[in-house]
Amino acid sequence: MTRRGHGHLNWKAEIKAAASRITPYVQRTPVMQARGFGLEFPVGMKLEQMQHTGSFKPRGAFNTLLTQDIPKAGLVAASGGNHGAAVAYAARVLGHRARIYVPELAGPSKIALIKRLGADLVVVEGAYANAFTEAQAWEAASGAMQVHAYDAPATVAGQGTCLREWEEQGLEADTVLIAVGGGGLIAGALAWLAGRRKVVAVEPENAPTLARALQDGPETEVEVSGIAANALGARRIGRICYDLAQAQGVQPVLVSDAAIASAQKLLWQERRQLVEPAGAAALAALTSGAYQPAPGEKVAVLICGANTAPDPFE
Amino acid sequence: MTRRGHGHLNWKAEIKAAASRITPYVQRTPVMQARGFGLEFPVGMKLEQMQHTGSFKPRGAFNTLLTQDIPKAGLVAASGGNHGAAVAYAARVLGHRARIYVPELAGPSKIALIKRLGADLVVVEGAYANAFTEAQAWEAASGAMQVHAYDAPATVAGQGTCLREWEEQGLEADTVLIAVGGGGLIAGALAWLAGRRKVVAVEPENAPTLARALQDGPETEVEVSGIAANALGARRIGRICYDLAQAQGVQPVLVSDAAIASAQKLLWQERRQLVEPAGAAALAALTSGAYQPAPGEKVAVLICGANTAPDPFE
Repeated sequence: MTRRGHGHLNWKAEIKAAASRITPYVQRTPVMQARGFGLEFPVGMKLEQMQHTGSFKPRGAFNTLLTQDIPKAGLVAASGGNHGAAVAYAARVLGHRARIYVPELAGPSKIALIKRLGADLVVVEGAYANAFTEAQAWEAASGAMQVHAYDAPATVAGQGTCLREWEEQGLEADTVLIAVGGGGLIAGALAWLAGRRKVVAVEPENAPTLARALQDGPETEVEVSGIAANALGARRIGRICYDLAQAQGVQPVLVSDAAIASAQKLLWQERRQLVEPAGAAALAALTSGAYQPAPGEKVAVLICGANTAPDPFE
Repeated sequence: MTRRGHGHLNWKAEIKAAASRITPYVQRTPVMQARGFGLEFPVGMKLEQMQHTGSFKPRGAFNTLLTQDIPKAGLVAASGGNHGAAVAYAARVLGHRARIYVPELAGPSKIALIKRLGADLVVVEGAYANAFTEAQAWEAASGAMQVHAYDAPATVAGQGTCLREWEEQGLEADTVLIAVGGGGLIAGALAWLAGRRKVVAVEPENAPTLARALQDGPETEVEVSGIAANALGARRIGRICYDLAQAQGVQPVLVSDAAIASAQKLLWQERRQLVEPAGAAALAALTSGAYQPAPGEKVAVLICGANTAPDPFE
């Protein structure tokens, strides 16, 4: 939907406007300097998994809903789980209907979460692409408005508010590590930080979507799998993300599933934060040594999601 | 050990000194204004369960170890789990031996945590009092130094640093709600805040130790049980706590186990914080309506522990 036409955007203005729009509806999430994890240096952290619905996604969802006329047929979204939960939540708060298509691999806890939020939920066999196809069909048939998970300016501007907020809270880092799925969050980060701080894209080895696109071109489709696939397993990177990443010379860092699982366990054992694999991926780049800061380089990781399976209370 | 002799203490000076002493060893824990939980008002929170070992206890443990000559025989402590883990951790960091006595009701995840930290661990049949008796016997036999869980000035001053830190971080509350076990943390809070902000003591209905002591006298022994018993189940309140609470007219608020369990679930479902029952008790006073703020009264809760059973990674 946005293969062109975002190049002219004044991203800083978009993100500032998004922030004033969504502030009444989102949680300002806490930040800290964390020690431990076997690292010699402290790690800045923003606990964005404490956002409503357990991921950063409501920022983009609210910004989208608050800038568009929503048809009577309501909203439709395809999602590996977190985006769907965010759209369901934002729709409920703002009084719209929402129909969410998720692939089976979203898993029982994300599916239960979306149900709890009151959306019409359709679980689709196979991968995310199938859910996306069905969502498009519903959009055409019903007149519902589709909320894209990552590749729309309103989504990216919403996610960018997370970085703006972090800077307001005194972010000290030279370098911010961010996990990449379809690229909505990191696009927001690149748009807001715009070269003022280094942004490191972290991808699972099993879903190197941005890395492959930067190598082989923006339309590259990648096979995705692994423990973070329902959150970081977009097969094609969003075009907004691609353009920003290419322009800023982003060099993705890849982490193994074992490194992600290890970082996930460390976040619990050392800081009592129970997160989903995607939420631990950025930290995994540090704990595995896949990204090694230069001497004196201050680093920070965005903890982006905590919709773990199994859910401890389901 | 401290039935007299703390009345003369300049608590503010003690807590400031404790803070400079322990700062290199403890985690500065994040704070936030949280919305949700079915409440009409925001709730200030300090995520002190993100402290090393999953509770506030290392503050007091480090302050104790750093102000005393530690004998070659090392340290001994009796604990429902969290204090023992903190003493084991501080001992390891500072290079001392530690022997920890825990009652069976500490539960498998706290027991596993203390083992992981490398302490000599003795699991004692029956209640906390039995573990305390055995710890005293070991102290006499070995010459090890006992670290009291709550009723010693160095412990209370260490725990008080948590409130000092919170004020440095911009605590906005008129009223701070704190769960009470033996009373070390709330004594530190009362000592630091000293009437400048209201402190509400929250106790389980199944362990109303401070409430009963304030009614019937400081030596009162209480039967304790319930889901938070291993953390909040001291049978007798610490004398330091008693004196401060009585002097400041503290009126404890009681919460049921059901209210605690409900707040624990809300902390996960709305803010993705997985905490132990004791860690949810202060919030339970708000969510159950046991404590109802006056119009305009700003409230905050200290999240004090997250050593849940079962441990999601054990």
